[in-house]
Amino acid sequence: MTVSDAGEEALLLRILERAPHPPEGEVWAGDDAAALATPSTGRLLVTTDMLVEGVDFSLDHFSGGDIGWKCAAVNISDIAAMGGIASHVVVSLGLPGDAPQGLFEGILDGILDMAASCGVALIGGDLSSAAEVVISATALGRARGRFVTRSGAREGDVLCVTGSLGGAAAGLGLLRGGIAGDDMLDNARRRQLRPSPRTEEGPLLAELGATAMIDLSDGLARDLARLARASGVGCSIEASALPVDPAAAAASSILKTDATSLAVTGGEDYELLVALPEDRLDDAVSEMEGRSGLSVLGALTSDRAISIAGRAIESWEEEAWQHFRSQS
Amino acid sequence: MTVSDAGEEALLLRILERAPHPPEGEVWAGDDAAALATPSTGRLLVTTDMLVEGVDFSLDHFSGGDIGWKCAAVNISDIAAMGGIASHVVVSLGLPGDAPQGLFEGILDGILDMAASCGVALIGGDLSSAAEVVISATALGRARGRFVTRSGAREGDVLCVTGSLGGAAAGLGLLRGGIAGDDMLDNARRRQLRPSPRTEEGPLLAELGATAMIDLSDGLARDLARLARASGVGCSIEASALPVDPAAAAASSILKTDATSLAVTGGEDYELLVALPEDRLDDAVSEMEGRSGLSVLGALTSDRAISIAGRAIESWEEEAWQHFRSQS
Repeated sequence: MTVSDAGEEALLLRILERAPHPPEGEVWAGDDAAALATPSTGRLLVTTDMLVEGVDFSLDHFSGGDIGWKCAAVNISDIAAMGGIASHVVVSLGLPGDAPQGLFEGILDGILDMAASCGVALIGGDLSSAAEVVISATALGRARGRFVTRSGAREGDVLCVTGSLGGAAAGLGLLRGGIAGDDMLDNARRRQLRPSPRTEEGPLLAELGATAMIDLSDGLARDLARLARASGVGCSIEASALPVDPAAAAASSILKTDATSLAVTGGEDYELLVALPEDRLDDAVSEMEGRSGLSVLGALTSDRAISIAGRAIESWEEEAWQHFRSQS
Repeated sequence: MTVSDAGEEALLLRILERAPHPPEGEVWAGDDAAALATPSTGRLLVTTDMLVEGVDFSLDHFSGGDIGWKCAAVNISDIAAMGGIASHVVVSLGLPGDAPQGLFEGILDGILDMAASCGVALIGGDLSSAAEVVISATALGRARGRFVTRSGAREGDVLCVTGSLGGAAAGLGLLRGGIAGDDMLDNARRRQLRPSPRTEEGPLLAELGATAMIDLSDGLARDLARLARASGVGCSIEASALPVDPAAAAASSILKTDATSLAVTGGEDYELLVALPEDRLDDAVSEMEGRSGLSVLGALTSDRAISIAGRAIESWEEEAWQHFRSQS
């Protein structure tokens, strides 16, 4: 049974059957637009991200569930990186006509599972045919108190990162290499296929006084460069300060690559890179205990030069992934 | 110069240069998410729609500007069809690496032109590489007073439609046939390439007491079926009641097709199909004068059967476009 056999109306009905129901006075999926009660305070946060087959994922490694999960997760992560709490998501999905209906069902499952795990509701979407699988989500959320941009970091602030780095890139390498393995390697694969956005940590770090924050979708090198340039600061990060994911370390020898390189350029870890005033650091470290953990990378400087493990940021950026650039 | 030569960062910078600037206290493009002041009253409206090259448009007929315009327009139309006023839009864009940078610039122009013409701000987006041009927009808007779903129409309400029907389908036929021509045919082509959402009419019709409303993206047959089935009503529409676009009538003989068929199954006219209590009809007709105009199609019945020009709706639906169905 392909999606073409099923037809658009039947697939839309499947979404309506599966999607959560709105509270009284709201309309979600099934009309021209969703209608939501407006939050009475704070800021409305909006973000959109598209994943494309052959660019962001391969059907050789990703199930439908992984695709749907990841698309919801990367958008919810962007809301967390503003210090916000995601609440609603809409999804546009393009599928080849000969795609099995199971792929569609899997994608829907993945979106709903990820969203439900963060208290986010799927409230609408669009289906289209396309040459490859293309999925674009828009997440809405709310910053109850202050929201945190990329540009507020100041000299003397401490640069920190949640969790660990390099796991998702290691996972991609293992998947591409078809390398089976133990639980440790499974962790790396899971970080690539089913990332966990830092939905608790983002709002907490905002409350604790974070001056700048960004989620690590494109890797530490590229995302640090964005935060530091937007804030007009620099920093020097020692290799020993990098919280390399144990799974990345374990995978690096199998993949014949360098664990530091995975951690710096890998991308898709969806950890939060955050600048904190020095006097809030202890509180932040203790709040993040039992959650993601928080590692100090270094102090931000008025000198805008950025280096990681002794190498200038520009040379790391060259190594990192960029859309529309062919990879060497 | 291709988008691959330019690189993602340069293209993102072009968007930041061109996109409008946020008011004090808000953040738009350039961060993890946009942060908006929350509207103090009413309902927040959210809709998303994706357009795919080879499905929704061909680069043989659509310029970049047409693609960007249409993607913004179809989303803004969905907000109008709820009786709302669109305010913000985010866009995900996938482009082949070898696409000329001019295509990207044209799409950006088209989005910004359409959005500005409706008072809508482009506040964020995402760029990706893709096998074909894929563009997905999410529009946000607000219903100040009541919003209008598809499901509120009742027996005895009068079914009406703004403007005229069949023009966009006629325009597509002319474009595909490579048929040049006079101003009349240009109108049809323009309706296909640069649709005008009924942004004034939607909120006015809501204020006037519309009981159900839907925008005609998939054609009268399919969208009427949706409205009538959601509301649990039927109707019988005479051929003579259909406001056939003069451009569709002129094109139909050239295209060797039937003007009624273009008007009923054509789609993409982005007119509003609306149910009104009988006692509000005169006011609505007079309010729509000097705007889109408003034509009465017929009275809604408790008998759920639907027919147009003497044919049952099911046979018209068969003729109409559906994603994931091959067209005969």
